[in-house]
Amino acid sequence: MILPRTGIAVDVHAFGPEGTPLWVAGLEWPGETGLAGHSDGDVVAHAAADALFSAAGTGDLGSNFGVDRPEMAGASGVRILAEAARIVREAGFEIGNVAVQLIGQRPRFAPRRAEAEAVLTAAAGAPVTVSATTTDHLGFPGRGEGLAAVATALVVPRA
Amino acid sequence: MILPRTGIAVDVHAFGPEGTPLWVAGLEWPGETGLAGHSDGDVVAHAAADALFSAAGTGDLGSNFGVDRPEMAGASGVRILAEAARIVREAGFEIGNVAVQLIGQRPRFAPRRAEAEAVLTAAAGAPVTVSATTTDHLGFPGRGEGLAAVATALVVPRA
Amino acid sequence: MILPRTGIAVDVHAFGPEGTPLWVAGLEWPGETGLAGHSDGDVVAHAAADALFSAAGTGDLGSNFGVDRPEMAGASGVRILAEAARIVREAGFEIGNVAVQLIGQRPRFAPRRAEAEAVLTAAAGAPVTVSATTTDHLGFPGRGEGLAAVATALVVPRA
Repeated sequence: MILPRTGIAVDVHAFGPEGTPLWVAGLEWPGETGLAGHSDGDVVAHAAADALFSAAGTGDLGSNFGVDRPEMAGASGVRILAEAARIVREAGFEIGNVAVQLIGQRPRFAPRRAEAEAVLTAAAGAPVTVSATTTDHLGFPGRGEGLAAVATALVVPRA
Repeated sequence: MILPRTGIAVDVHAFGPEGTPLWVAGLEWPGETGLAGHSDGDVVAHAAADALFSAAGTGDLGSNFGVDRPEMAGASGVRILAEAARIVREAGFEIGNVAVQLIGQRPRFAPRRAEAEAVLTAAAGAPVTVSATTTDHLGFPGRGEGLAAVATALVVPRA
Repeated sequence: MILPRTGIAVDVHAFGPEGTPLWVAGLEWPGETGLAGHSDGDVVAHAAADALFSAAGTGDLGSNFGVDRPEMAGASGVRILAEAARIVREAGFEIGNVAVQLIGQRPRFAPRRAEAEAVLTAAAGAPVTVSATTTDHLGFPGRGEGLAAVATALVVPRA
């Protein structure tokens, strides 16, 4: 029996200075302060990509897109997710689905959920669902220091 | 091949004032201070419900039980989980299982695990397992500011 | 149809005093400060074991290795994972895979990933993948107070 494999990932980025554009879940969020870092800091796309690597056993964001791939240094979250999906398929897996939850007090995610899911599903070539929650003002997401995302993915070795 | 889908969710609630009754994992915990909020703050039941939505791609707690469903505003965690399971089945999925972990220094969960699992399994109409951990006094659960729960769920599209 | 079951777990340990040896993911990390506690504090192995219990519904680390099993009090993470896998199989499940992510600013995990995965895979008798992430200096892992790990596991009831 060929069993599917499940993976898991957390991703965290701190907010950058006011005026930084916010990219989350493959979308830009006008009027919101964005995340620091040399990438766009898209915690949702990053967690989705890392959960795929976790399920397939193909390393992680750092080992796949680190110093050996300088052309990925400033890549968008959507590009990172698409490239992760390509690597996982090349390693011999079909992608069943990816599910991600955004954790933070803002932005208000629900009105753009369908738009985000469409962009990320297109990038991964498999269903990506995105939900969101707040933390009752607890922890670093609750204090507005940064955003977090948790993700799981299901992949199946090709017969 | 019909593949199962996996989902993930975190839920967090802050403790309320002394005297607030504590509801966690579908059970009341006499003598323990409860969680703040307009619901019973049952992080275990909420995370279980949200993991089902995440797996099925049917939104999240906020989008399903928010302003459009005022009758759910003060609903118990058990009722929220039962209603989430109904919505996910109505969207065309069978529920395989839900697994939840309670994260906090108290209450002492183990003696009532079987009782909690029975209540939540009945609510979901599918196996719900519940485990518990502490955080070595680190983070907001470790400082006793609130409770957290993480959950995963497996669902399968009906043929 | 026999469905697989998924499980989830978080594990957290605080750093101990300087000079404590660090054991993470089944390996010793020379030159790094280790984790406090009566066990080796191996958050990766502990989360892996707890995710197996979560998926199978066989309790958790505390209920399996607590006061009733004093001989496990100081057991290594590798031994705990091997014993958890034995218990889950004895309860009637095959283990599909376990995926774990280490969350912390150090140690630098990537150079020893393959070594860690080999040790944990041998202990579980099933594929264990390990990835790693930092938290942009946020939260207790970001402040260097301790390490965390998140894990998921997939198990299947034997026919």
